Amino acid sequence: MAAQYAGWALKVKSAQGEFFAMGSGPARALRGGEPLFERLEYRDQADVAVLALEGRRLPPEEAAEKIAKKCNVSPDCLYLLIAPTASLVGSVQVAARVVETGLHKMLEVGFDISTVLSGLGTCPLAPIAGDDLHAIGRTNDAVLYGGRAWYTVRADDAQIEEIIEQLPSSASRDYGTPFYDLFQCYGGDFYEIDPLLFSPAEVSINNLTSGRTFHAGRVNGEIIQRALLA
Amino acid sequence: MAAQYAGWALKVKSAQGEFFAMGSGPARALRGGEPLFERLEYRDQADVAVLALEGRRLPPEEAAEKIAKKCNVSPDCLYLLIAPTASLVGSVQVAARVVETGLHKMLEVGFDISTVLSGLGTCPLAPIAGDDLHAIGRTNDAVLYGGRAWYTVRADDAQIEEIIEQLPSSASRDYGTPFYDLFQCYGGDFYEIDPLLFSPAEVSINNLTSGRTFHAGRVNGEIIQRALLA
Amino acid sequence: MAAQYAGWALKVKSAQGEFFAMGSGPARALRGGEPLFERLEYRDQADVAVLALEGRRLPPEEAAEKIAKKCNVSPDCLYLLIAPTASLVGSVQVAARVVETGLHKMLEVGFDISTVLSGLGTCPLAPIAGDDLHAIGRTNDAVLYGGRAWYTVRADDAQIEEIIEQLPSSASRDYGTPFYDLFQCYGGDFYEIDPLLFSPAEVSINNLTSGRTFHAGRVNGEIIQRALLA
Repeated sequence: MAAQYAGWALKVKSAQGEFFAMGSGPARALRGGEPLFERLEYRDQADVAVLALEGRRLPPEEAAEKIAKKCNVSPDCLYLLIAPTASLVGSVQVAARVVETGLHKMLEVGFDISTVLSGLGTCPLAPIAGDDLHAIGRTNDAVLYGGRAWYTVRADDAQIEEIIEQLPSSASRDYGTPFYDLFQCYGGDFYEIDPLLFSPAEVSINNLTSGRTFHAGRVNGEIIQRALLA
Repeated sequence: MAAQYAGWALKVKSAQGEFFAMGSGPARALRGGEPLFERLEYRDQADVAVLALEGRRLPPEEAAEKIAKKCNVSPDCLYLLIAPTASLVGSVQVAARVVETGLHKMLEVGFDISTVLSGLGTCPLAPIAGDDLHAIGRTNDAVLYGGRAWYTVRADDAQIEEIIEQLPSSASRDYGTPFYDLFQCYGGDFYEIDPLLFSPAEVSINNLTSGRTFHAGRVNGEIIQRALLA
Repeated sequence: MAAQYAGWALKVKSAQGEFFAMGSGPARALRGGEPLFERLEYRDQADVAVLALEGRRLPPEEAAEKIAKKCNVSPDCLYLLIAPTASLVGSVQVAARVVETGLHKMLEVGFDISTVLSGLGTCPLAPIAGDDLHAIGRTNDAVLYGGRAWYTVRADDAQIEEIIEQLPSSASRDYGTPFYDLFQCYGGDFYEIDPLLFSPAEVSINNLTSGRTFHAGRVNGEIIQRALLA
């Protein structure tokens, strides 16, 4: 969560207009500006910063300067990677975050993620879309309808029982409509989409304290077919 | 195609009789003698050459000399690897070429492979046969009836629509007969076999220009069972 | 078999009471004390020894001294790894031995394992249990009911035909009862359990001499579900 999760919503004004991109990677823990870092109680210090951006346009110099400053590194020690959502790298990068997506959902429903010891997951690689907005739709659908995540935790069974049914995407009121269509339904306002939608299709939690495994949700082949191969 | 594809049909006369083996690997792009290289417009230059041979008998000195000369390297800078088809290495090597097999088929049906950006695939590992001729049969059947390949391209949808149905092995008149039997039917003449047969069982093409995915063919479990486990 | 198999039953008396753990890894071939090594006719010599222990309590100094002495290395050149069965490492370590488990069963039924050229396998990762005894049950069940192994050998078909049906766990009189329950049935005496039970659920042998593939057993989803997710 402190590195791979795409939590840095970067906005920078420059001579070429406003630059916007979502940032993931270890530079996030150097900046530590997201509210998430207070809950994680985690911070890094380093002379070098690395940030991966999801976007189509190369970041302007002002963006590099701002990131370096926030991370407290010299600009010549900052490494920026960028790939558009509608690219092979974009598809891989979102699919590879399926475990973090489940962790973020745990935070949303009030589960203490410091009890999580390990996680692993699988997710279909979304076929690349013709433009970035459709790509955002597909890469999200790959996680929401095709992602599976498995966690080992050390907690009370009761704490897990309380939230397990809320963890998979199917617990959301917005489940079932391909992401791009949903985005259109809400008039293009991302923040109108139910935040509880963002999670893998299927979640398992193995509690080391009791040895029990809790499970909810299932992969939805019908929607994957419709949304990813449209 | 310029390296891993087995495109160098090596024939060398020596005191021990004629030596024949199919060659794959980066030395092919040093030699560049195959007609394929004119279409690829690709050539390498290097001081060292590496070629993998599919065969049972170690190559004679004359073969090494010929290969080194064709690649324009000194014989002591030539590395030759050799494994018979009826070996674990042989099975892995053919299966690992499933993506190239689909690319070659694209060339056969007139699709411009310079539009291909990436490819990935899966293929069953053929159980090792009792002799090389049966092994050639099985390793081919593994690709023809069990291989799947997925490509991303940047092309017109119309160009893909025109050829997608011809891409999988099932588009060939020779589809359906295990390769070894087919070889016998044609009196042991490899060149009588329909060249359009050589392709994966299932092919998907994701076009980045439109975001659409085109798909043809399917894995044939019944023939795999019959041909590989006979 | 000479390294990864867990063949060293380590028992050491110390001031803190008796220390017991199963040991696997390359140190076994330095010691060579197991009867197995006479059949393998294999022995290593090295200045450094590495042994992985399955246990919950850190080994006492006396254990390290004994191991170093048996391996004929200086104690400061001995590396010991330890993980309890009821841990992620414990689950991975047992699953990763599925190929060796099949080889051991071959030895039990009298098949000459020096004819084996290669092996590969898959095994479910057992969810971590609440205590080590339940974890021993689950990790064993993962192999016995979910493990698959595939071997290439160079032998006579008749030798394989003679033993293939005995190779999978289903050939045992104790097949079908989850391992933990079985252990209780036999009053907690591990050595009462049928030694022929310990093998993968499904075994394939590809004979290079004839090219034939022999197969027995099958994965048992019903018991896996019951035993691993209880």
